[in-house]
Amino acid sequence: MNTETVKHIGEKVRVCGWVQTVRSHGKIVFLDLRDRSGILQVVSDPKLIEGVREEYVLEVEGEIKERPIEMINPKLETGKIELKAEKIKILTKSKSLPFDLRDLKLSLPKLLDYRPLTLRNKKIKAVFKVQEELISSFRKNLKRLGFFEFQAPTIVPVATEGGAEVFHIDYYDRDAYLAQSPQLYKQILVGAFERVFCVTHAYRAEPSVTTRHLSEYISLDLEMGFIDSWQELMKTCEILMRNIFLDIGKNCQNELKLFGVEVSKIKSKIPQIKLREAQKIIFERTGRDHTKEPDLDPEDEKEICNFSKEKYNSELIFITHFPAKKRPFYTYPDPEDPEYTLSFDLIFRGLEIITGGQRIHEYKMLLENIKKFGLKKKDFNFYLQAFKYGMPPEGGFALGAERIVKQILNLENIREASLFPRDMGRIDQRLAVSKIKPR
Amino acid sequence: MNTETVKHIGEKVRVCGWVQTVRSHGKIVFLDLRDRSGILQVVSDPKLIEGVREEYVLEVEGEIKERPIEMINPKLETGKIELKAEKIKILTKSKSLPFDLRDLKLSLPKLLDYRPLTLRNKKIKAVFKVQEELISSFRKNLKRLGFFEFQAPTIVPVATEGGAEVFHIDYYDRDAYLAQSPQLYKQILVGAFERVFCVTHAYRAEPSVTTRHLSEYISLDLEMGFIDSWQELMKTCEILMRNIFLDIGKNCQNELKLFGVEVSKIKSKIPQIKLREAQKIIFERTGRDHTKEPDLDPEDEKEICNFSKEKYNSELIFITHFPAKKRPFYTYPDPEDPEYTLSFDLIFRGLEIITGGQRIHEYKMLLENIKKFGLKKKDFNFYLQAFKYGMPPEGGFALGAERIVKQILNLENIREASLFPRDMGRIDQRLAVSKIKPR
Repeated sequence: MNTETVKHIGEKVRVCGWVQTVRSHGKIVFLDLRDRSGILQVVSDPKLIEGVREEYVLEVEGEIKERPIEMINPKLETGKIELKAEKIKILTKSKSLPFDLRDLKLSLPKLLDYRPLTLRNKKIKAVFKVQEELISSFRKNLKRLGFFEFQAPTIVPVATEGGAEVFHIDYYDRDAYLAQSPQLYKQILVGAFERVFCVTHAYRAEPSVTTRHLSEYISLDLEMGFIDSWQELMKTCEILMRNIFLDIGKNCQNELKLFGVEVSKIKSKIPQIKLREAQKIIFERTGRDHTKEPDLDPEDEKEICNFSKEKYNSELIFITHFPAKKRPFYTYPDPEDPEYTLSFDLIFRGLEIITGGQRIHEYKMLLENIKKFGLKKKDFNFYLQAFKYGMPPEGGFALGAERIVKQILNLENIREASLFPRDMGRIDQRLAVSKIKPR
Repeated sequence: MNTETVKHIGEKVRVCGWVQTVRSHGKIVFLDLRDRSGILQVVSDPKLIEGVREEYVLEVEGEIKERPIEMINPKLETGKIELKAEKIKILTKSKSLPFDLRDLKLSLPKLLDYRPLTLRNKKIKAVFKVQEELISSFRKNLKRLGFFEFQAPTIVPVATEGGAEVFHIDYYDRDAYLAQSPQLYKQILVGAFERVFCVTHAYRAEPSVTTRHLSEYISLDLEMGFIDSWQELMKTCEILMRNIFLDIGKNCQNELKLFGVEVSKIKSKIPQIKLREAQKIIFERTGRDHTKEPDLDPEDEKEICNFSKEKYNSELIFITHFPAKKRPFYTYPDPEDPEYTLSFDLIFRGLEIITGGQRIHEYKMLLENIKKFGLKKKDFNFYLQAFKYGMPPEGGFALGAERIVKQILNLENIREASLFPRDMGRIDQRLAVSKIKPR
């Protein structure tokens, strides 16, 4: 690999990679050769590389030499050396690039149209290094806390969490749906493993185009039994987010630098505020009266984060006690005011990134709520077994991976944080617009 | 947690868990309390636990005491101690169990009908501990080899690998499909990250009921660029499987013991044999003439493993050089005989668990093959970008997670190795049989 060559000064080596740039200086040509480890400068006689262009795939043999002092590039891991080419083999040719791959100035739709190519750009690759680290940190920290990792099914028999935004599948000659979340399965598994998590895909037939929604997204889900109170959930959330930020801050330094951003530090407790109080504060600060709404809208989320930053010096804030009517049937009602629930959202830099709460673990109460929500018991018989035979007090939450990466890197659109974003207008290539029926 | 109490002899503790068994001895009652760490024996006055039955969820306070010598249970981590209950609180009640949860004697359909409950059985839980370790080991070993982990999309625009066995989705008002594999995406990503892997779900509308197929399964996929030859792929496969077996052998000792099995040891090179040679051997051994077939059938897979065991003392064998016509369009033809391909399957104890091969990385050749296979270029324009702009020689393979667990634990049916198996007759609950149309 390229960066390993620094240990081989004076030696013959053979390296492979893509040509990132070709700079001709008459009798001598400089190539930047890119591989997964980084860039290596290759110095070559023009005759050896006739016709070689950007993105050609090469195998280069030659000697590793120290660069003259005036040529040293302190920004590059291999900045003190270069490879004096003796033999160059073209492994694969490339067509001419349709744009400058190092300095992308494309609109988002174009960036996505050319995703297989634009993914080779350093800054775009960095987004997914951060995503990888986020998921890896989520997993590592939960395993440390005794959680069991499971694989959630994504084909489900009923649209459990509200009907409209679900994708229908032709399942043999019957109906099935794409899971809107692994909720019911993670609860079932609490009955067997107590503490469980999964990295899964969730699907929402979101019939509008926003900067915050994807039709297929990565959901980082966890659920835990034997909680003393629902505060334990928010405590776990806090520990998890603190460690995730620490891991990303430590392991993605170069990636964060490319975006000129820093991760949040969670020093003390993340502030908590009830939905109704948050709405009052927003009303006082902006004059916007959303005090009867069942949720915060995007503007509200931004405003309450401004408030949190000013008052608590925190970029994160929990909004709690959402109305029972607007949360799913399994959400635990607040014993002090059953119109509201023991539920929470975590807002980070103006965007909801986590949603969770305590669940109803008593069989009878769950049955009553299924009825109250107008759902059919027979659709939930499988799930209900877990509660019929003894479920401890439990709850959990889910992190939206793309949203967290978007907020950390200060991206404008969630599509930038998804390798291959799916929405009503795109699955890899754009879908024919004429066919879109408004819903 | 239960197993931690061994460090607290003579101290007061508070533990929570499920009642696994209740054994009444008149004036004294023994409970086995189960939590995620294991079992703890609780000794109680009958008055404290009136009405308590199996699967009740309890909170127990009391003192940890050493057991009398004759009561020590060497099989249990907490076998030298017991909890003398002083206070017992019922957190949640359970209905009477429909069967003995410790000694399951149910048919597979019944086991699955009651999955939320039967998952609490120790031996069934063990299956998924092994699955967790398999996936964890796959990930760990590939990261060590410099692979980047990505999240593969599962909604795809075209049925890329053969039309019949694909699930159709109503995607807004258009058509989309569930991915049969992450193949095209992992290849695209080789162009950016060189070495990539993913843990993903793959979907097959398998219109028959077998012991080897699931409609949704866990695919452990990897792809690597800059290979010297396709032998490098099989070498990587060998390293990976050796380490996976070692990790499972080490970290799942108790689970393997429950099934009375051991993992395979891969000491030397896994033998390789061409499909046509394998078929000749099978013909010679059994008289079954499958020498013109494009693949091995289940009987053949078993027979060639018998041969491998006898001749090479290996429970694993690579079958190579499948016919070009029966492998997907991106499979690299064997330069020495283009009717066949640089492809392989790995058979383990009589079942194919891995399939892979070198891929066509040259743009022109790929275009020609798309045409030759009767596919439309326009369906692959997105994917083709990766090859238009320089792709190194590359290849990869995919492990079927449930199949590997099935073979390691010697399970009869692949459904036993899936938490929530989906097939044409079941999504959690059984689907109405009357509706199944034969295809």
